[in-house]
Amino acid sequence: MTPFCAAVDWGTSSFRLWVLDQGGGVLAERRSGEGMTEAGQRGFAAVLEDHLSAIGVAGDLPAIICGMAGARQGWMEAGYVDTPANLEALASAASRPDSRRDVRVLPGVAQRDPARPDVMRGEETQIVGLIEEGLTSGIVCLPGTHSKWVEVRDRVITGFSTFMTGETFALFREHSILRHDASGAADADDPAFAAAVRDALASPERFLHLAFSVRPASLMGLSSGAGGASRLSGLLIGLEIAGARSAMTVGRKLTLSSSGALMGLYRRAFEIAAFEVRCVEAESVTRQGLLKSARTIWAGEATP
Amino acid sequence: MTPFCAAVDWGTSSFRLWVLDQGGGVLAERRSGEGMTEAGQRGFAAVLEDHLSAIGVAGDLPAIICGMAGARQGWMEAGYVDTPANLEALASAASRPDSRRDVRVLPGVAQRDPARPDVMRGEETQIVGLIEEGLTSGIVCLPGTHSKWVEVRDRVITGFSTFMTGETFALFREHSILRHDASGAADADDPAFAAAVRDALASPERFLHLAFSVRPASLMGLSSGAGGASRLSGLLIGLEIAGARSAMTVGRKLTLSSSGALMGLYRRAFEIAAFEVRCVEAESVTRQGLLKSARTIWAGEATP
Repeated sequence: MTPFCAAVDWGTSSFRLWVLDQGGGVLAERRSGEGMTEAGQRGFAAVLEDHLSAIGVAGDLPAIICGMAGARQGWMEAGYVDTPANLEALASAASRPDSRRDVRVLPGVAQRDPARPDVMRGEETQIVGLIEEGLTSGIVCLPGTHSKWVEVRDRVITGFSTFMTGETFALFREHSILRHDASGAADADDPAFAAAVRDALASPERFLHLAFSVRPASLMGLSSGAGGASRLSGLLIGLEIAGARSAMTVGRKLTLSSSGALMGLYRRAFEIAAFEVRCVEAESVTRQGLLKSARTIWAGEATP
Repeated sequence: MTPFCAAVDWGTSSFRLWVLDQGGGVLAERRSGEGMTEAGQRGFAAVLEDHLSAIGVAGDLPAIICGMAGARQGWMEAGYVDTPANLEALASAASRPDSRRDVRVLPGVAQRDPARPDVMRGEETQIVGLIEEGLTSGIVCLPGTHSKWVEVRDRVITGFSTFMTGETFALFREHSILRHDASGAADADDPAFAAAVRDALASPERFLHLAFSVRPASLMGLSSGAGGASRLSGLLIGLEIAGARSAMTVGRKLTLSSSGALMGLYRRAFEIAAFEVRCVEAESVTRQGLLKSARTIWAGEATP
């Protein structure tokens, strides 16, 4: 198999690299915690070259990158493509940092509507991968620190909304008064998770109250203290779903792009909210999106 | 004027003491940052005695205390009176720590309803003061780190709800991605505050999205970056009001017990939400509540 490109998903705190052949076959793989924050100190080019040389990749193999490496604090600011954004526009707007190797950093997507300004960086590549795999139109939910709900119409990203779900969960669990009662991991099978999703879907406006209730329930011995993380997670995911269905034209069907425990939590929450969900592995569609963009740039592949 | 008692509002991070005569006249006053956290290290009795001796108070003047000094991590756990809670029950449930002086620590109030468990500690004394000043029935909003909405019927605390408004504001402003755009103080006269209150009242379920929008608006130059704290504050206060009016039987009239800038923010938010609000100074009603409880304990004063 001949290597076609190195494909990098470079987030705030994670680095994932695959050497791909032109058909998407994975020839080699590297993972580390050298995300934007750490690489900003050591130098992005140095981090990339260290990983590539560790697996014996030639100096002329091109590299394509998505994610926070393209942020203002990243390798170089890769800008944003405005909505409506299609696959070709994303690939052709890639930036080229000063580097001996042919490196391209993919742009993010901006929604410059003053009534609902929004940005994404990295998630657009998952959408490219999903479109490449056959998605034509629909809603895609990408859970995370800043969950994205993306609307695709005729293979074009037409709009999206960000929800601070994962970040709020971490803030409350680590820094709030709930930290005593919400340590540990959220569990999709915990009845406290399901009850919280239902509570938030029924009364999303009461979130600031529902979140606090974790504490007195424990103080008064009404709960065991276990389940606090599950309850907090359920409240926040329920609030996200309630907000997304009110903010966007969301039917009862969507694509969920995630992985591991987070995928399990969202899948269960969507079940409770009576959504029909197709689950895809986020990492697989990211790789697919990087490959598609690489082929557009280096193989002159057109978008149908 | 003969001193009747020392009255102390002892919070998590603040200590306020007044020497009162039997009619409520303030004979002397002390303030410091020796709240529960600091006093827990130095010793509660030592902190209290240092303040009293600094103003020459005799060793036999009784002292009444409300607030976090009565929490499990406080001077001594003063327990909770369950709802429905009346003035006399609160005063007679006061705890007496081991101390040469006659010291009484007032209990908090617990709502032991498994469907809406809740606790307060300190705010109940403001309610006692308000009832003493003539409140018979109505809703009282007490903004803060953990805002309380309290329902009073026939001079009895019948129910209440806590909202994590102030704590969430601090968490987002200090630790979240919004910290770059929401530094500075919230301003009740900032149009961004009013717009955010309206947004949250109209779409409280979108909070996790509305909060994030502070960031892209700044990234895209759609906002100056100033106003971020006002917008965040407006979203949270709007969300609290939306949640409270859905959780409680709240008419369009209420009493707001607060002070300073926070009072201004809530007053403006209630104006936008079309509530008719009577504003009272929290400190004044706290003092009034401490005095009433002291008279019940030491002067055998009955509650009508």
